[in-house]
Amino acid sequence: MGPPMSSEINLNSDLGESFGPWQMGNDAAMLGIVKSANVACGFHASDPTVMTQTVLLAKKNGVSIGAHPSFPDLQGFGRRQMRLDEAEIEALVAYQIGALAGIAAAQGARVTHVKPHGALSNMASVEAGMAQAIARAIKAVDRSLIFLVTAGSEMSKAGRAQGLRVAQEIFADRSYDDAGNLTKRGHPQAMIHDPAQSLAHVKRMVEAQAIFSLSGKKIPTDIHSVCVHGDGEAAVAVAGAVRDGLQASQIRILPLPEMAALR
Amino acid sequence: MGPPMSSEINLNSDLGESFGPWQMGNDAAMLGIVKSANVACGFHASDPTVMTQTVLLAKKNGVSIGAHPSFPDLQGFGRRQMRLDEAEIEALVAYQIGALAGIAAAQGARVTHVKPHGALSNMASVEAGMAQAIARAIKAVDRSLIFLVTAGSEMSKAGRAQGLRVAQEIFADRSYDDAGNLTKRGHPQAMIHDPAQSLAHVKRMVEAQAIFSLSGKKIPTDIHSVCVHGDGEAAVAVAGAVRDGLQASQIRILPLPEMAALR
Amino acid sequence: MGPPMSSEINLNSDLGESFGPWQMGNDAAMLGIVKSANVACGFHASDPTVMTQTVLLAKKNGVSIGAHPSFPDLQGFGRRQMRLDEAEIEALVAYQIGALAGIAAAQGARVTHVKPHGALSNMASVEAGMAQAIARAIKAVDRSLIFLVTAGSEMSKAGRAQGLRVAQEIFADRSYDDAGNLTKRGHPQAMIHDPAQSLAHVKRMVEAQAIFSLSGKKIPTDIHSVCVHGDGEAAVAVAGAVRDGLQASQIRILPLPEMAALR
Amino acid sequence: MGPPMSSEINLNSDLGESFGPWQMGNDAAMLGIVKSANVACGFHASDPTVMTQTVLLAKKNGVSIGAHPSFPDLQGFGRRQMRLDEAEIEALVAYQIGALAGIAAAQGARVTHVKPHGALSNMASVEAGMAQAIARAIKAVDRSLIFLVTAGSEMSKAGRAQGLRVAQEIFADRSYDDAGNLTKRGHPQAMIHDPAQSLAHVKRMVEAQAIFSLSGKKIPTDIHSVCVHGDGEAAVAVAGAVRDGLQASQIRILPLPEMAALR
Repeated sequence: MGPPMSSEINLNSDLGESFGPWQMGNDAAMLGIVKSANVACGFHASDPTVMTQTVLLAKKNGVSIGAHPSFPDLQGFGRRQMRLDEAEIEALVAYQIGALAGIAAAQGARVTHVKPHGALSNMASVEAGMAQAIARAIKAVDRSLIFLVTAGSEMSKAGRAQGLRVAQEIFADRSYDDAGNLTKRGHPQAMIHDPAQSLAHVKRMVEAQAIFSLSGKKIPTDIHSVCVHGDGEAAVAVAGAVRDGLQASQIRILPLPEMAALR
Repeated sequence: MGPPMSSEINLNSDLGESFGPWQMGNDAAMLGIVKSANVACGFHASDPTVMTQTVLLAKKNGVSIGAHPSFPDLQGFGRRQMRLDEAEIEALVAYQIGALAGIAAAQGARVTHVKPHGALSNMASVEAGMAQAIARAIKAVDRSLIFLVTAGSEMSKAGRAQGLRVAQEIFADRSYDDAGNLTKRGHPQAMIHDPAQSLAHVKRMVEAQAIFSLSGKKIPTDIHSVCVHGDGEAAVAVAGAVRDGLQASQIRILPLPEMAALR
Repeated sequence: MGPPMSSEINLNSDLGESFGPWQMGNDAAMLGIVKSANVACGFHASDPTVMTQTVLLAKKNGVSIGAHPSFPDLQGFGRRQMRLDEAEIEALVAYQIGALAGIAAAQGARVTHVKPHGALSNMASVEAGMAQAIARAIKAVDRSLIFLVTAGSEMSKAGRAQGLRVAQEIFADRSYDDAGNLTKRGHPQAMIHDPAQSLAHVKRMVEAQAIFSLSGKKIPTDIHSVCVHGDGEAAVAVAGAVRDGLQASQIRILPLPEMAALR
Repeated sequence: MGPPMSSEINLNSDLGESFGPWQMGNDAAMLGIVKSANVACGFHASDPTVMTQTVLLAKKNGVSIGAHPSFPDLQGFGRRQMRLDEAEIEALVAYQIGALAGIAAAQGARVTHVKPHGALSNMASVEAGMAQAIARAIKAVDRSLIFLVTAGSEMSKAGRAQGLRVAQEIFADRSYDDAGNLTKRGHPQAMIHDPAQSLAHVKRMVEAQAIFSLSGKKIPTDIHSVCVHGDGEAAVAVAGAVRDGLQASQIRILPLPEMAALR
């Protein structure tokens, strides 16, 4: 794959994060904004019933469906680091992709991408071994799946080495450091809560196909997708502003499988 | 489907019932005897790593692979009744079939049948609503899956009503009452531990395509498969004796998808 | 114990029902209203961290702490019937009381009552064997614990037979049928959402020490406690109205262990 | 506490590690050999029913009972590193001690020590913050509990800093390096499988109150307890040989709470 055409982009969000009686996020609102949904698979959130409802709602909204595999840690929401060996990681990724694919098939839908969640994603972004285990699992289950990863991460390299279609994402509500990594959450400017500021941040990076750090450094990289969040009214407002602003700039917002750059 | 030809039968067993560090059963021995494996999917036993190992061993032995979905109850091994609504049951069956399918795909194998486990199976054998929920889920995920059920149960009716290929099983180590149900475990003659006696029991039923109760009553029914167990040396001996005895009678033992009666 | 003095009553609520990242209920508001908290113990909700926070907040508000044991079913919030044997029930009740007692001890607090949750409570309200198993477990762990039960239930009988202090509760937001049981949720008048109506319902029953059914039937019974709920603004308003109205009638609202009738 | 008298020692073992239908270890044999049992609390192994059976058998054998708290990881048997914050660790230790105390109380027994399990123990042996969190939790729940730790570890320091009674243990079947740490499992001489060799290893260290490394280096340290394992016939033989050999040397083998050095 080459770089995405400047006239198209994907918006994705982590959805289906309710569990049993507990609600999280505003899936209905977000599924009207984004074009690809990363659906929790029961390891950090969700359950078969929540997955079914999420898949149905995504399908109804023309939103493409991806598996959002995680470490097995409901209490910690998959955000706590766990040290698993590569065979365990391959197996749990295959399991979770399959579980969501089963739910999707039962609703006449399909899983078309995979985006690792939380600590699994954070660790695999910098550890080549973990990144390769995830990429191997995805390829083994279905080599047509798109691997949605943090731009410039070890997962990006591993996915390309395995011959997978790799979609690189940036975050609408986070700033970057000069190494191209997300600014640590403790930093006063780590988060971007203002819709207009977030849109400007995203637009600049999408149009330049580069990450811009807080200090102004430009780090060229392919950008296929923008991750937006749905927890809280502010987040939904940011997501909507990003969508509206990109469209106003004649950038088409597409589900991942429909992007020319990922065919 | 009509009745199976008298010259063919399937042998199946519940396998992959280890979990994490805990071993159960003798899968290696049983995979040399049976032709179809019902693989636990992580709800009553197994985990992604155990599932991977079980699928690999089944594939190597030419044993067809089925999902063995259960209520979510590891501590109770899926043997404790739970009262779920039909939508919950449909979703958990789809999830578990999919999870095993993902693991199987990653190993170059396929899931070709589904057999409910434990309390889920026992309840769905007599409750039409549950049986129909399971059958609907199987059909929705993949209508080519074979539904392996207790002969004469509500699951058998539900599967046929949904147009699924239904394989009816009998048990090699259990006796039957005059209603065609398994004799309650408390009954002194409920279990058959003697290999020769078990073989005679099975052969008589397979050849007659009928269940014979303890009192001698004959209940005609299609019999496609014989379930054997692998827990303990006695059980493995029974399984081997049944296999050897059926083959000695010129009855071919086949994986479920290769049976003429299920095509 | 004799009947409670007409001048005192307890208010209790099910609290600590968040889990990991998921919030439920308005514990801060409810802990300013009730005098006894039934704290989830990790089987249907909560986790060690949530339990710690709940215990701390209860202690700060002078609210007495009780264990709220459940079937092991996070996804189903303990509301799905499970069929366990009595030894399993005894063990899981002892485990959950102890777990909360450990958390409480670490915060300088104590567990002083036990109230079964959800399906465990519903089943044990009508099944004598289950009720006795729960009562035996409570007595075995600590015979000074107060057993908080549905008025007139099998749990009430079992607790008294074991020599436990039994506190009987009524529900502020539910109506009763002529057998003294809660009106089924499907019934149009099952729920009482209006604060004034709920207060009148409660006051009439507390003052008469009797349940009044929808048809007007009077069923005399000791009433020590009123259960109020905290899910939603309406529920908190009902709880506050009941508290205010009872106090306005010179009825003192006390923690369970401070009630004269339970000493 | 000063050093233990040379004429007394404790033997401990990790027990109650079955779960639901899965058996592990030979608890019956080990409870006839050791004097203190570290009982799994449901996070890495065990469940309320298994805990009840283990406590009963320990009590019958005059074996003192300790909680064996772990990270929440049944599949990984608590052996996989997890990154939790200190408040989470304090809460889960308090929860697990309490849960076992509830089970023990119900059987007329008491929890008298705490020994962290698996990855929790390994990490807290070298990370002061984790060690302190565990020690704080133990002290907060019950300051009379004995803290059983790896000799010379950060847990030992943290326990003493909190004023807890600290019992230091050595391993009968493991060799040590010159830093006083266990030789890595990959090392050809990491494990000691021969009963006579294991006994000589233990006796030398107990009598000298010092660890001896593979290279012969002597590292003086208080030794209160010897940990023996029960998985496999060889392990039980080692445990029995250590017990017999120490007794033949006039060293009394006592439950932890009966040791003069821990009073």
